[in-house]
Amino acid sequence: MVIKSKISPLTIQRLSTYLRGLKYFAQEEGKASVSSDDIALWLGGTAAQVRKDLSYFGSFGKKGRGYNVDELIKTLEDILGLDKSWKVALIGLGRLGRSMAVYKGFRNSSFEIVAIFDIDPQKVGTKYNETPVYHLDDLTRVCEEEGILISIVATPAEVANKVFQIALDAGIRGILNLSGRSSFNPPPHAFIKDVNMEAEIESLSFCLTHY
Amino acid sequence: MVIKSKISPLTIQRLSTYLRGLKYFAQEEGKASVSSDDIALWLGGTAAQVRKDLSYFGSFGKKGRGYNVDELIKTLEDILGLDKSWKVALIGLGRLGRSMAVYKGFRNSSFEIVAIFDIDPQKVGTKYNETPVYHLDDLTRVCEEEGILISIVATPAEVANKVFQIALDAGIRGILNLSGRSSFNPPPHAFIKDVNMEAEIESLSFCLTHY
Repeated sequence: MVIKSKISPLTIQRLSTYLRGLKYFAQEEGKASVSSDDIALWLGGTAAQVRKDLSYFGSFGKKGRGYNVDELIKTLEDILGLDKSWKVALIGLGRLGRSMAVYKGFRNSSFEIVAIFDIDPQKVGTKYNETPVYHLDDLTRVCEEEGILISIVATPAEVANKVFQIALDAGIRGILNLSGRSSFNPPPHAFIKDVNMEAEIESLSFCLTHY
Repeated sequence: MVIKSKISPLTIQRLSTYLRGLKYFAQEEGKASVSSDDIALWLGGTAAQVRKDLSYFGSFGKKGRGYNVDELIKTLEDILGLDKSWKVALIGLGRLGRSMAVYKGFRNSSFEIVAIFDIDPQKVGTKYNETPVYHLDDLTRVCEEEGILISIVATPAEVANKVFQIALDAGIRGILNLSGRSSFNPPPHAFIKDVNMEAEIESLSFCLTHY
């Protein structure tokens, strides 16, 4: 599938949510087809938005008959790159890192944490949740051997920029940044996705203050 | 400050990031004024975007002289509702909940987790990180007593919808949802912010597949 224009991060986020909704419709409700209204209801959005988001990727659904659930699941998985499996390196085995190592959302997903990295001699050489813990110095070697392209960075904020550079040098192209620091401009063809709980909760105080 | 139009979630997210950047400029670099270019560089965006985001909230900065850092910090804090402090209830004391209870990003922030809720008799009645752990049945009482309006939900996905309803009934108006489930339409004047690590990492596989 070739995508012509740049897709907004919010659209990509909604595609993930649609996919989750469709799987729910298929597995929990046994539905074979759904309308854009059904999908919009799942997300709390509008049917027009659903149709627009999907239109970037071609023409789906039949007028008056809605979308075939299984086909649309398959299409969304293709769009999101979930038709293959991704090996993931977790960097930083503090509390947040440990919660990611056992994160239920990754089970039965296309993402598998196959290696953990830290610099604490107490942790290096052990296993966590059956996953080996390596020294950060071994990142390049392990990423090459395992074919790892995605990393979750759960280190303290103070060392995040340094860790990003180490990860990019090791061939990592996608970083899920949980460190809270977000001032790093990745080179072309590398991507950093920031998840900052403080910023997320600030959007709530914004809404509670103004709406 | 009165806001006329609905502000997009991405703009709000960027305001949080600008605020973090400005604090860095003030505290680490001792800067008194910055240009929209400086701010854009921090975020990896454009100066035009910065000016547009700020324009929703009035007129800031002087042509050719940039923004006064301290004033803009104060303004952004007002916009984001951070000029007051928010008491937060953490619901769910599993691994993810525990990592939130000690999350460094909340230190020195406007958010304080003052009460934790769970249903596990082993946990109820104890303290975690010096914060009392209550039974979920006590949510309404404690939220009323403490004046809690914001909750972080870190329960398993299967019970999330039920917990959302309990939280809303207890007077909670803002929910940071870490459970991974996001199919709940909050009533008017209540807000749910979903943080789903699986969806976040899917945006990376999207980028690595298509860009």
